[in-house]
Amino acid sequence: MSSAGEFKRDASYISDRITRDGRRPEHGPVDGELWPVAPGRYRLVAAKACPWATRAIIVRQLLGLEDVISLGTPGPVHDERSWTFELDPGGVDPVLGIERIQQAYFKRFPDYPRGITVPAIVDVPSGGVVTNDFPWITHDFFFEWRDHHRADAPDLWPADLREEMEEVMQRVYTEVNNGVYRCGFASSQEAYDAAYDRLWTALDWLEDRLATRRYLMGDALTEADVRLWTTLARFDAVYHGHFKCNRQKLTEMPHLWSYARELYAVPAFGDNTDFEQIKTHYYVVHQTVNPTQIVPKGPDPTVWLEPHGRG
Amino acid sequence: MSSAGEFKRDASYISDRITRDGRRPEHGPVDGELWPVAPGRYRLVAAKACPWATRAIIVRQLLGLEDVISLGTPGPVHDERSWTFELDPGGVDPVLGIERIQQAYFKRFPDYPRGITVPAIVDVPSGGVVTNDFPWITHDFFFEWRDHHRADAPDLWPADLREEMEEVMQRVYTEVNNGVYRCGFASSQEAYDAAYDRLWTALDWLEDRLATRRYLMGDALTEADVRLWTTLARFDAVYHGHFKCNRQKLTEMPHLWSYARELYAVPAFGDNTDFEQIKTHYYVVHQTVNPTQIVPKGPDPTVWLEPHGRG
Repeated sequence: MSSAGEFKRDASYISDRITRDGRRPEHGPVDGELWPVAPGRYRLVAAKACPWATRAIIVRQLLGLEDVISLGTPGPVHDERSWTFELDPGGVDPVLGIERIQQAYFKRFPDYPRGITVPAIVDVPSGGVVTNDFPWITHDFFFEWRDHHRADAPDLWPADLREEMEEVMQRVYTEVNNGVYRCGFASSQEAYDAAYDRLWTALDWLEDRLATRRYLMGDALTEADVRLWTTLARFDAVYHGHFKCNRQKLTEMPHLWSYARELYAVPAFGDNTDFEQIKTHYYVVHQTVNPTQIVPKGPDPTVWLEPHGRG
Repeated sequence: MSSAGEFKRDASYISDRITRDGRRPEHGPVDGELWPVAPGRYRLVAAKACPWATRAIIVRQLLGLEDVISLGTPGPVHDERSWTFELDPGGVDPVLGIERIQQAYFKRFPDYPRGITVPAIVDVPSGGVVTNDFPWITHDFFFEWRDHHRADAPDLWPADLREEMEEVMQRVYTEVNNGVYRCGFASSQEAYDAAYDRLWTALDWLEDRLATRRYLMGDALTEADVRLWTTLARFDAVYHGHFKCNRQKLTEMPHLWSYARELYAVPAFGDNTDFEQIKTHYYVVHQTVNPTQIVPKGPDPTVWLEPHGRG
């Protein structure tokens, strides 16, 4: 929190990367160690409740990497130490043999001082975490794991759009993905009011943008859509009420809503959207916002199945 | 609270009534004292934030009783003792000369043991409360103050519909007016889940009923509409998010929503609907539900001005 009650995200991550043959990556910084792409060696640990983690689950499926990178799914809740594998038999991840993702962090860094977050990629042989730097995890699934993509995998990072796409994704990240948290975790009326205006300025921009574009970057699905999606999927279920992002529901923003329904109909998006886990996570974990920990029964999820009418 | 975490409303009120010449009333029980109708003698104390109080403000205006019964408006917040007159100059009601409605209760009953509530009718000469029995307050405005109604006052209690109307109003009271509180103040998931289902069963019944009727009882406005209205007016602003009544917004229930917009266009309803006071009241007073006391900026109130298309 800043002194004015504004929520600030801790953005310190383990910046190791997994690259083809462990060589210098095609794009981006090398601030940590480099690990080689290797089918079957790594496990993506990602909670379906968490928007940052769900990005990685979706991209893994869009690219057809399910057989080369396994998936562990903790959640929907966590305690003050870390996310736990309470959904697995015996409360233990069946591949890593651990009860909480914190153990993979401590296996590699016994005194790991920063946030224990998902998504995290774990090196299965050693049991230690490799990286939790979420924007680079999905980026590298695309650029570094190309040899293992399915044949008709979408081009999530079209080269000719990359510059504009980075600008759009940056604005989506600061104003929307983080913008909803800035509303919900504001600790003063002034900070909340400013956060609300900032969020809706961005949502109005997106609503306008999607009035004339099928996807965020034009005619085809890209990584930018994945990054926006995880906030839209949680909007009416959680952010609207729990985080007080309530000028309108997503269902009341016509272009964003039809766009979201079109994405929901894609298996990689729809299959990995678990409204019950999403609601349970936010309403149970954030006791400062919802002290009763009661989880709302609404909203009606069947509206997601209405025809989207786009295309 | 019941042992299962269900909210129960304390329904003990001062059951005095104000009747024509202080005689036996046309309808209903006589459990307390009888006071005579007298223009200028009584003051209605009613917060615009409070749904039970707003009923009385609306009926007073519909019947044209503004010049014979004055109005004091405390709120939008109150402390553990009672509603206060913080909206008035100096924080004092200009007619009663008191800072909080509790003083009018104690003036009449120095050890008054029950809830200090609005609406309350105060006898101006003595400064003591006469009654806070809200269903009978609006009832008696109609039946007992008839000599003072405006010439074209609506027939809020059509004799031929009274029996059906009582049934409808009873269901609206237990299932809707109180139903939203049963959701919001449930202290267990089980109690909330049951309250939610009970509320939406009733709202579905009303949605169906209003598909074929302009008003709740048919072609004309009645007291039943006033009683439903005060919950509908607060639904999207407060109950949807704050009380977790979130299967749908009112704006997503087509018949209820157009019906509500038609009522909003009637001055007695629209003039006395203050969304800012309503939101401030619930979000600031209920610290057990909203510990930050931050008041949401949404929802967008301009949707209330859209054409209702009924009639």
